[in-house]
Amino acid sequence: MRPADLPRRLLLGPGPSNVHPRVREALARPLVGHMDPTFFELLDGVQDSLRALFGTGHPLTLPISATGSAGMEACFVNLVEPGDEVLIGVAGVFGDRMAQVAARCGARVTRIEAELGTALDPDAMADAIGRIRPRVVALVHAETSTGVLQPIDRIAAASREAGALVILDCVTSLGGVTVAIDEWGVDAAYSATQKCLSCPPGLSPVSFSQRAVERAATRVTPVQSWYLDVNLLANYVGESRVYHHTAPVSAIFGLAEGLRLVEEEGMATRTERHRHAANLLIEGMGDLGFEPLVDAAVRLPSLTTLTLPEKVERGEADLRRRLLEFYNIEVGGGLGPLAGRIWRIGLMGENARVTNVEALLSALRRELG
Amino acid sequence: MRPADLPRRLLLGPGPSNVHPRVREALARPLVGHMDPTFFELLDGVQDSLRALFGTGHPLTLPISATGSAGMEACFVNLVEPGDEVLIGVAGVFGDRMAQVAARCGARVTRIEAELGTALDPDAMADAIGRIRPRVVALVHAETSTGVLQPIDRIAAASREAGALVILDCVTSLGGVTVAIDEWGVDAAYSATQKCLSCPPGLSPVSFSQRAVERAATRVTPVQSWYLDVNLLANYVGESRVYHHTAPVSAIFGLAEGLRLVEEEGMATRTERHRHAANLLIEGMGDLGFEPLVDAAVRLPSLTTLTLPEKVERGEADLRRRLLEFYNIEVGGGLGPLAGRIWRIGLMGENARVTNVEALLSALRRELG
Repeated sequence: MRPADLPRRLLLGPGPSNVHPRVREALARPLVGHMDPTFFELLDGVQDSLRALFGTGHPLTLPISATGSAGMEACFVNLVEPGDEVLIGVAGVFGDRMAQVAARCGARVTRIEAELGTALDPDAMADAIGRIRPRVVALVHAETSTGVLQPIDRIAAASREAGALVILDCVTSLGGVTVAIDEWGVDAAYSATQKCLSCPPGLSPVSFSQRAVERAATRVTPVQSWYLDVNLLANYVGESRVYHHTAPVSAIFGLAEGLRLVEEEGMATRTERHRHAANLLIEGMGDLGFEPLVDAAVRLPSLTTLTLPEKVERGEADLRRRLLEFYNIEVGGGLGPLAGRIWRIGLMGENARVTNVEALLSALRRELG
Repeated sequence: MRPADLPRRLLLGPGPSNVHPRVREALARPLVGHMDPTFFELLDGVQDSLRALFGTGHPLTLPISATGSAGMEACFVNLVEPGDEVLIGVAGVFGDRMAQVAARCGARVTRIEAELGTALDPDAMADAIGRIRPRVVALVHAETSTGVLQPIDRIAAASREAGALVILDCVTSLGGVTVAIDEWGVDAAYSATQKCLSCPPGLSPVSFSQRAVERAATRVTPVQSWYLDVNLLANYVGESRVYHHTAPVSAIFGLAEGLRLVEEEGMATRTERHRHAANLLIEGMGDLGFEPLVDAAVRLPSLTTLTLPEKVERGEADLRRRLLEFYNIEVGGGLGPLAGRIWRIGLMGENARVTNVEALLSALRRELG
């Protein structure tokens, strides 16, 4: 099996989404070295664009050289020391993953849970913050396992009042919905390139506030990961340009072009495009008996979760397999406790288009009609 | 600055090296999902090819979703527990990096050092192994900072006799010189894609022996990195196909094509091509007053280190800048204590060609003539 032999898929699952042709062209560009002055110029531009997208002025904003889960890990290994109290809002698989990663950093983890398909309760989070006085509070902006868009401001404000740093997962929000980490008061945010940025998986944009940088610089114990230590990474992306590891040059070429596409479109148009496509999808899927799992108020436009009509429930995996095999359309099943109970349909980045919605609806009508 | 605006470079530094056009084409291929059955088929083939290249039958052979330094970290976080005795052969920057990474895993690190530009002394290593009885012995096959190709068999044999696991850095050897980890008795090896495999940086091929897999599975403490935990990774690359993190699909497309190129050429032809190009380079550079840092017996063909003629020494950084700016040729300076004292010239993968040697020599003759 060679890459050229693979089928052409329409990727409407929870990510990766399809890569924009201009990004694919950038990936194929001949390399320059990771210490080349022209590469540093390109990287500076990538960092600027990421700051705009995260809604931040944080100097330490960069693409981590690994996928989104490594971005999550980068936030925890730098900001958590063994024995630290860490409060985590768990409303799905990715909140749960945060708790696992924090525990591996030696944190004393407290979980505040929400029912799957709902948002965290800000009062419950604020109560726990007052009670536990955590050093770090972590939560997920766009929970990819449930399709919930979590309101951030109240929880972040309560955290800052208590002196806690706030870590935020923006994997499925960045580039698809508004992210404003400075306005919210978030200290460390991470995302991924394969969702709303229409790039391949492989990089994790992160941003660290000045408070977070200071926390990392004044740790008692060394950061347990050499690869993800922001004290070292800052010397490569910053002015001193000290070699740390070899930056994934091609992936950064792709990201540079993906970010340019976002800028050309503008985030206002882009968020509206995501919202419009999701609304059309929900309407059309409703006619087929699929119902939104999530209340409209906290529904994530880039990833729609739908409960299944009775006639699909038993054979849902088979129907997804048929969509993939006969129509080349990928949609996602449920993850964790929602496996077999929901579908996850991503309309992310370039894929958030009416034609893609219609292609899926038409295929499903044929299969279910 | 857009990727399309960047200059075309001939990358003759310590890596990345230039990417083969067929690999670049593969990088630009439309994605399939990371849980797509066709992707798993492709990934199976990549794992098979990597086994052949590492010279191993280890089932757990896979590309880690990050660069070579993360592959190093993957070996240590899985095999080292806090308090473990770890013996590290340090003959350059990358042996030193191993010691840093091991220390961040809580290891009690003993370093056996070699003079820069020489190989580790097997007797000194064997003595230390007998004295310390380490749980892990780690060393570098191809030290990218010095250009030394380390003989492995005696040190690995002494390690196994003492019951220690052996970790080996193959970053600049895999695909350029013979690697035979089963024959040597190596338990965990890691490499990188941007050196002799002519792929972009971003993946780290690794291989874990059955002994290593058992060590990781029977740890007392959890692996400190969730992202690099081979107990979890094995479920994605193995038969159960459990989602862990989103695999970097495009990078794996590139690697699949890069590995196919190696197979088409055959490693015998390929190693000979690397040796031939390096010999021509050394001869030509000798005429210009550059002398090999490393004895012929332990010289690494893929990366040649050269001491500088007096007239270059003072202005070596300036000369490298001129090569880059006016000839679009990148060569590497010294790293660490060798900065300003040597050049590092990589002829790796597709770049190990006579034409590239001649281009560099001609440019240098013009500059120095």
